[in-house]
Amino acid sequence: MDEILKQLQDGTISIEQAKEQLAPYENLGFAKVDHHRPKRQGFPEVIYGEGKTVEQIQAIIHAIKAKNNNILVTRVAKEKAAPILEVHPELHYDETARLIYWKREVAPANVGQGYIAVICAGTSDLEVAEEAAITAEVMGCNVRRIYDVGVAGIHRLLDNLEEIQHATVSIVVAGMEGALPSVVGGLVSHPLIAVPTSVGYGANFQGLSALLTMLNSCASGVSVVNIDNGFGGAYNAVLIDRLANKA
Amino acid sequence: MDEILKQLQDGTISIEQAKEQLAPYENLGFAKVDHHRPKRQGFPEVIYGEGKTVEQIQAIIHAIKAKNNNILVTRVAKEKAAPILEVHPELHYDETARLIYWKREVAPANVGQGYIAVICAGTSDLEVAEEAAITAEVMGCNVRRIYDVGVAGIHRLLDNLEEIQHATVSIVVAGMEGALPSVVGGLVSHPLIAVPTSVGYGANFQGLSALLTMLNSCASGVSVVNIDNGFGGAYNAVLIDRLANKA
Amino acid sequence: MDEILKQLQDGTISIEQAKEQLAPYENLGFAKVDHHRPKRQGFPEVIYGEGKTVEQIQAIIHAIKAKNNNILVTRVAKEKAAPILEVHPELHYDETARLIYWKREVAPANVGQGYIAVICAGTSDLEVAEEAAITAEVMGCNVRRIYDVGVAGIHRLLDNLEEIQHATVSIVVAGMEGALPSVVGGLVSHPLIAVPTSVGYGANFQGLSALLTMLNSCASGVSVVNIDNGFGGAYNAVLIDRLANKA
Amino acid sequence: MDEILKQLQDGTISIEQAKEQLAPYENLGFAKVDHHRPKRQGFPEVIYGEGKTVEQIQAIIHAIKAKNNNILVTRVAKEKAAPILEVHPELHYDETARLIYWKREVAPANVGQGYIAVICAGTSDLEVAEEAAITAEVMGCNVRRIYDVGVAGIHRLLDNLEEIQHATVSIVVAGMEGALPSVVGGLVSHPLIAVPTSVGYGANFQGLSALLTMLNSCASGVSVVNIDNGFGGAYNAVLIDRLANKA
Amino acid sequence: MDEILKQLQDGTISIEQAKEQLAPYENLGFAKVDHHRPKRQGFPEVIYGEGKTVEQIQAIIHAIKAKNNNILVTRVAKEKAAPILEVHPELHYDETARLIYWKREVAPANVGQGYIAVICAGTSDLEVAEEAAITAEVMGCNVRRIYDVGVAGIHRLLDNLEEIQHATVSIVVAGMEGALPSVVGGLVSHPLIAVPTSVGYGANFQGLSALLTMLNSCASGVSVVNIDNGFGGAYNAVLIDRLANKA
Amino acid sequence: MDEILKQLQDGTISIEQAKEQLAPYENLGFAKVDHHRPKRQGFPEVIYGEGKTVEQIQAIIHAIKAKNNNILVTRVAKEKAAPILEVHPELHYDETARLIYWKREVAPANVGQGYIAVICAGTSDLEVAEEAAITAEVMGCNVRRIYDVGVAGIHRLLDNLEEIQHATVSIVVAGMEGALPSVVGGLVSHPLIAVPTSVGYGANFQGLSALLTMLNSCASGVSVVNIDNGFGGAYNAVLIDRLANKA
Amino acid sequence: MDEILKQLQDGTISIEQAKEQLAPYENLGFAKVDHHRPKRQGFPEVIYGEGKTVEQIQAIIHAIKAKNNNILVTRVAKEKAAPILEVHPELHYDETARLIYWKREVAPANVGQGYIAVICAGTSDLEVAEEAAITAEVMGCNVRRIYDVGVAGIHRLLDNLEEIQHATVSIVVAGMEGALPSVVGGLVSHPLIAVPTSVGYGANFQGLSALLTMLNSCASGVSVVNIDNGFGGAYNAVLIDRLANKA
Amino acid sequence: MDEILKQLQDGTISIEQAKEQLAPYENLGFAKVDHHRPKRQGFPEVIYGEGKTVEQIQAIIHAIKAKNNNILVTRVAKEKAAPILEVHPELHYDETARLIYWKREVAPANVGQGYIAVICAGTSDLEVAEEAAITAEVMGCNVRRIYDVGVAGIHRLLDNLEEIQHATVSIVVAGMEGALPSVVGGLVSHPLIAVPTSVGYGANFQGLSALLTMLNSCASGVSVVNIDNGFGGAYNAVLIDRLANKA
Repeated sequence: MDEILKQLQDGTISIEQAKEQLAPYENLGFAKVDHHRPKRQGFPEVIYGEGKTVEQIQAIIHAIKAKNNNILVTRVAKEKAAPILEVHPELHYDETARLIYWKREVAPANVGQGYIAVICAGTSDLEVAEEAAITAEVMGCNVRRIYDVGVAGIHRLLDNLEEIQHATVSIVVAGMEGALPSVVGGLVSHPLIAVPTSVGYGANFQGLSALLTMLNSCASGVSVVNIDNGFGGAYNAVLIDRLANKA
Repeated sequence: MDEILKQLQDGTISIEQAKEQLAPYENLGFAKVDHHRPKRQGFPEVIYGEGKTVEQIQAIIHAIKAKNNNILVTRVAKEKAAPILEVHPELHYDETARLIYWKREVAPANVGQGYIAVICAGTSDLEVAEEAAITAEVMGCNVRRIYDVGVAGIHRLLDNLEEIQHATVSIVVAGMEGALPSVVGGLVSHPLIAVPTSVGYGANFQGLSALLTMLNSCASGVSVVNIDNGFGGAYNAVLIDRLANKA
Repeated sequence: MDEILKQLQDGTISIEQAKEQLAPYENLGFAKVDHHRPKRQGFPEVIYGEGKTVEQIQAIIHAIKAKNNNILVTRVAKEKAAPILEVHPELHYDETARLIYWKREVAPANVGQGYIAVICAGTSDLEVAEEAAITAEVMGCNVRRIYDVGVAGIHRLLDNLEEIQHATVSIVVAGMEGALPSVVGGLVSHPLIAVPTSVGYGANFQGLSALLTMLNSCASGVSVVNIDNGFGGAYNAVLIDRLANKA
Repeated sequence: MDEILKQLQDGTISIEQAKEQLAPYENLGFAKVDHHRPKRQGFPEVIYGEGKTVEQIQAIIHAIKAKNNNILVTRVAKEKAAPILEVHPELHYDETARLIYWKREVAPANVGQGYIAVICAGTSDLEVAEEAAITAEVMGCNVRRIYDVGVAGIHRLLDNLEEIQHATVSIVVAGMEGALPSVVGGLVSHPLIAVPTSVGYGANFQGLSALLTMLNSCASGVSVVNIDNGFGGAYNAVLIDRLANKA
Repeated sequence: MDEILKQLQDGTISIEQAKEQLAPYENLGFAKVDHHRPKRQGFPEVIYGEGKTVEQIQAIIHAIKAKNNNILVTRVAKEKAAPILEVHPELHYDETARLIYWKREVAPANVGQGYIAVICAGTSDLEVAEEAAITAEVMGCNVRRIYDVGVAGIHRLLDNLEEIQHATVSIVVAGMEGALPSVVGGLVSHPLIAVPTSVGYGANFQGLSALLTMLNSCASGVSVVNIDNGFGGAYNAVLIDRLANKA
Repeated sequence: MDEILKQLQDGTISIEQAKEQLAPYENLGFAKVDHHRPKRQGFPEVIYGEGKTVEQIQAIIHAIKAKNNNILVTRVAKEKAAPILEVHPELHYDETARLIYWKREVAPANVGQGYIAVICAGTSDLEVAEEAAITAEVMGCNVRRIYDVGVAGIHRLLDNLEEIQHATVSIVVAGMEGALPSVVGGLVSHPLIAVPTSVGYGANFQGLSALLTMLNSCASGVSVVNIDNGFGGAYNAVLIDRLANKA
Repeated sequence: MDEILKQLQDGTISIEQAKEQLAPYENLGFAKVDHHRPKRQGFPEVIYGEGKTVEQIQAIIHAIKAKNNNILVTRVAKEKAAPILEVHPELHYDETARLIYWKREVAPANVGQGYIAVICAGTSDLEVAEEAAITAEVMGCNVRRIYDVGVAGIHRLLDNLEEIQHATVSIVVAGMEGALPSVVGGLVSHPLIAVPTSVGYGANFQGLSALLTMLNSCASGVSVVNIDNGFGGAYNAVLIDRLANKA
Repeated sequence: MDEILKQLQDGTISIEQAKEQLAPYENLGFAKVDHHRPKRQGFPEVIYGEGKTVEQIQAIIHAIKAKNNNILVTRVAKEKAAPILEVHPELHYDETARLIYWKREVAPANVGQGYIAVICAGTSDLEVAEEAAITAEVMGCNVRRIYDVGVAGIHRLLDNLEEIQHATVSIVVAGMEGALPSVVGGLVSHPLIAVPTSVGYGANFQGLSALLTMLNSCASGVSVVNIDNGFGGAYNAVLIDRLANKA
């Protein structure tokens, strides 16, 4: 802000320009697309697909592509993805993760520079785990998937322990009783993002059980995102992974 | 019931006698003490101490002792226990477990006949774990205590695994996220009674978190009793232990 | 574990072999099938059918059958069962209980060796009760069904009391107010597994009412599993029944 | 209202008088005491003592006594009752029920005219049960107390069945799982008012468990009042008892 | 019971006969139909239609009709009612109330003997109000309907006050904030059964809001049944109306 | 009321007429249409469309139009609106806001007389925001729409601050975490009506999260209406706007 | 903001000065006192007393008084108020409302300019009602108190209707079932701020019942603030009252 | 693990030694102190003080000090801290943060190596914020405190924006509506740990409101820990800060 004010003071820019730079979005009427995010936050605005029509999503994609930015649309059902991909055939769609995405340039795999471990408890948690894994990959990180290692069969987890412990950061996805992050959290020394899922029935209450379990974890180093929020888990992990690799 | 009806038909007993045998309790006015329980359920009526006055508890103890039955009073605060023990000095009181008890005859330790494992996650769960352990002992079972083996330090649990696996039945006591029963449940082949405790804070909601975790356990063979109900956990375990030893 | 370590020390097995024996599952990619369960827990891994595709279920069945183990798949809707049975025509499917199952060898009925009483409150609880009853039968136990004996017509229950009291263990299934386990619990001296169902409306809150009732039961010897978890109720009862018959 | 309007039209009363008769209370500043209730509802205004100071209660008692009406003050702690009784020594105070009351004229016991059965599950429910019983007596009804007949010992209830069945209406008070009204409701043919109490712990959630149980009762003829609302249960029962005796 | 025991003692009846009379129901396998209810409770067993198949309902109707008893089936969707009425064309079906019913003999209207007021707050509560009104009529009572008199337009209620006040008992049905019973309760001197409905949205939480309002009513003489339980409200009111008319 | 009573006293009106004026609605049987509202409350009765059939809505519209009053029907799904508009082609329907409306006379835009700011957090909140905006316009107010200015991109909000600050009153619509009213509330000096929406997933619990946030707002001058209640938000704002312009 | 930027551009102010004007508060270390509020929001910062020590409150009072601004401290217990008043003897303290306040200049009573009606349901709601009433008075508005007019005695309310209807805005305070705002809302044509209180017991759940009732009010023109938030209710009403009088 | 197995195979260590190294804790009876944590997790075991007696805490401190490890005890009330400090006078106690701590060696301030921003919304959140800040400092990180910058006065936050944006990671502590993390999250590009506090009243429900707000944050890069868990927030932040500085 200092710099903009200085430019204004110097007469380098006009008041109009100064104001534009303080609120630097494109107004589509139904939405305001934030083009400053890549600069401000390191990644372009991600489109939350659930409450939006096909037309709205296409318009926002169009605006972002015009700036040659990466694209990520979350929570896109198969039926909704089809017409979007017809118009934008260069985009990718992953049915399990329900993600549409496009990367401007695929950087060479940054092998040896650390990776994010995406761990899930059961086969039913795959959808959320893949949302996390692909999001992290689209945002430029290495990912290792360790799936179906729930606590009721602790040997399956212990057998993969070394790979988990060597990660920069772990994303642990679990439904039902959601106990996996507590066990993993006690075995690793890096940050752990816990993602509760709505998998379960009865006293699970659509993921409330797993959410409460994770918030009450007696393992240190565990923080939590919303139920089924694979994207959110990945976003946090990516920020941490970048810090680790940048330094 | 058949037998009583037959006796009535034969004229061996009167209608009045038949009726008395169908509702065989002693009416103290404020309470009806069930003297048939030792015969019907294998253990005398247990006195829930929390809502009762010192006078009420003493009167019920008096009635039970008159029949020479074992005595167990749960949830007795220290202040309430003192005047009771003054009147009944032969009773025992355990401050941690908040139990008053007396056994008619202490049977010789039934070594080698199996035992109940009482397992707890943390030091703060001791009160509930001891309520369970002593209840089981008063009811005539062997007990092994395995304490402070919460899932965030899984090694402490694994180190005691063999002793746990050889038990007839396990009582697993845990607060906070309550994940311990799921892990133990996956490692043993005997029934497991899970007891959530109200230990924790915030999103623990007085034990709700641990309760939901245990109800949603993905490990098979886990059933649950009320929050902080160490007595209830023990009662179930004792019934199972008796079946195993009786047969 | 001692034995494996000893073999390793003796050079009888390699490190690789030792590690394999500590995590003895088959990795199907989307799932890790635990082939050690029959040895460790007395029954092969049960497949929770709800979150899985037909293809995934078939693949897991295939892996288990290759080991000649018993098979039990729970929560399989009729539409999903049909294509599975086409591929595996030797499997059985029960529409009410929504179970697919297969037993390697049907042992001769172990008449006279005790039985599990499966008791339900109303006609609407049949689905859960049958899930429990068939699970227990597939796992090798005798079962007696006592249905539609809810507490609002207590005579129906009392009329079947003798059969219930002679069981080794009872599974009591009830929705709405869920009061049945408390009444039965006061009349029997064996362990009782209570299964709340989501049957009801309004302040029932999808089974929460029955669940809370059962957790707060003033009858001793009652433990609880998740709402609608007929399988879980049976699993617990089977473990207890085995202990009683084994001893 | 018709009559008042007619009198106004006829000139028998003034507008001022007509208005006074439409809102016929005494304004004490902090409270408006309704002196028309005996006429309109058959009993004077009952004072809810909990949120009020000693001075406020005394002032309201004074206003009611000036009209020579019966007096009933609910939820008065012992410490609060003492100074009130000093000023109004003719009042009665019951410590268990926490009621202050006075009856203008004690009618001769209306023996043979029906009675209200006040039934409670356990000794800990006595406080609420007595609030109900004494309220009903102060309001002029016969009461029979049947206490400590919870469902976990069904014989104690069945033994008192006849007395319960002959009542005009039953008030059933229960905490913990609150199953008693369902069982009683299935055995009687008169209306039943269920009063949940906050007695219990853990997943009882201060009476929520018993409340939900009663609302979901599968027995017909059961209606429910607020948790611990012994007074409310009695008020409903008295209205019904009067209808039965009046006709 | 006394009488049966006496007959047994006298040898008038056999043990087998005595037992049958203590549990006098017809066992259809999936259900036990209680034929003693008309004698014991004054009305035959009512069939809760929601969890039952067409075949099950038809079988139960068949069993009840064989005893020439009245019939009432609640919560029957239109699609389910059609095949039932084809088989039993003499039955009536009301689409709004979702009731199937049949009365053995239609008694002459008992004009002048009192009536039940069925009051509802809004047009959206009609379904529940009609379930209550028709149930009461089928059970032999007079009913007066006062609809769409919610508290936000208090004049509509006051205009119908006289008719409400002259009723023997009121059933008050309301969704949303559910305030109507409190206002009516303050204006009448007879018992009032409050029926919350699930009508509303947002913080209504499927009727929870109306339910809590009614349980907390500061008006005396209000008791509550489950959300949407028009049948239950009517059953209570009918029991009260009978007491008032019988005496 | 004084005036009506005076007229009655003077004999100017009959008792019948006096009564009619105290409850001045039209009884359609299933509904009582309040024709006094324009006089009493400044706007005709608004029809809540959700629980009503097409026929019921048409009948109420017919009754209101007969009095030449404005019309507003809320929560009308597209399928339901079509047949209504066929019969009443002069009505307008807005698909996003799900409103049917008609204004007797469109007053000239009251430019310069203040306006209501309708602010929403995200594109998914549009439906509720438009319900609020159009309601306010139909009721005769100026409206400015400021959409998609959620707090996670605070610059978008600050850029529109001046227009918001100059409004007479603000309606702030937000789902998910619902933080927008707190931020806006700290920046304006006029009243703010907060409308939580059910937009979100997981721990949002159908709008509960946004509702609680708004009720706990640390900004002064924020009051709240029900979840998704755009109409209610507008109604409050219109009342305030009228007060500001009237004075 | 435009103006500040212009001054900066013109060189009238320095960057440092521009920044100070964008964040114009006094930093006390533990708190940042906002001295711009009188200008920005029309009233100085109000001090929420609950979480603060006596020393912190005194320091903030000192800072505000230095600017000669009005003072209002909410939620100050009697014990906490005493030492504060010793240091600042010119402040007033109201024990019922738990408010400390001081007005720089007491404006002449603005008689005839409209007033705020503060209405409460019962004597137990007085504390919250007085917090609202005094807050409004300190902020310069006329207030009329109408207390103890709960809906269970509707005549008391109707008798005060005229005074309520003539108010500019109403604050309606109610606990228990919280039905009063719905009834008042249907009788007035001005905005109504509903304040639920935590008065009640059992299923009241510390004010949740009243809160939900008010949010679901079927009366239009009702908005809601937090439980027991008399201050918040008043603040909203004052903003509205000012708009009405300003215009 | 590989290494230990290799040593075992080589005969370098015995089976007993191998086992000890797999569960390397000190058994105090009531607790098992984990001495391997500094090696495994980078920081010694932290003692949760709340459920423990003074004697238990002293014993654990003694065991940790014997290994010359750093010490951190959380949630120690003033009364409990005094006797502990008497025995261990070299320990520090912070009353606001309720922490006891000791650092083996105070490393020179690692100036210029990045810092953690601890941000809190209001003065009442200080306790939790200080628990976070001091924990992070004891664990070796630089901390900057930015307090009392809640969203209702957004200028206070924006004025400190630069310092916040330059942090490695932010801990944002807020009670009431808990909106601060969403606003900060939209302004920074580093990870943000949100800590809800139980500060508030009414519909805050002991911190539930703030917790839900944070879980539903529409800002990316926000993860959440338990209510009032300042320690947990710090622990996560420290892990991230180390990764950033290590690399």
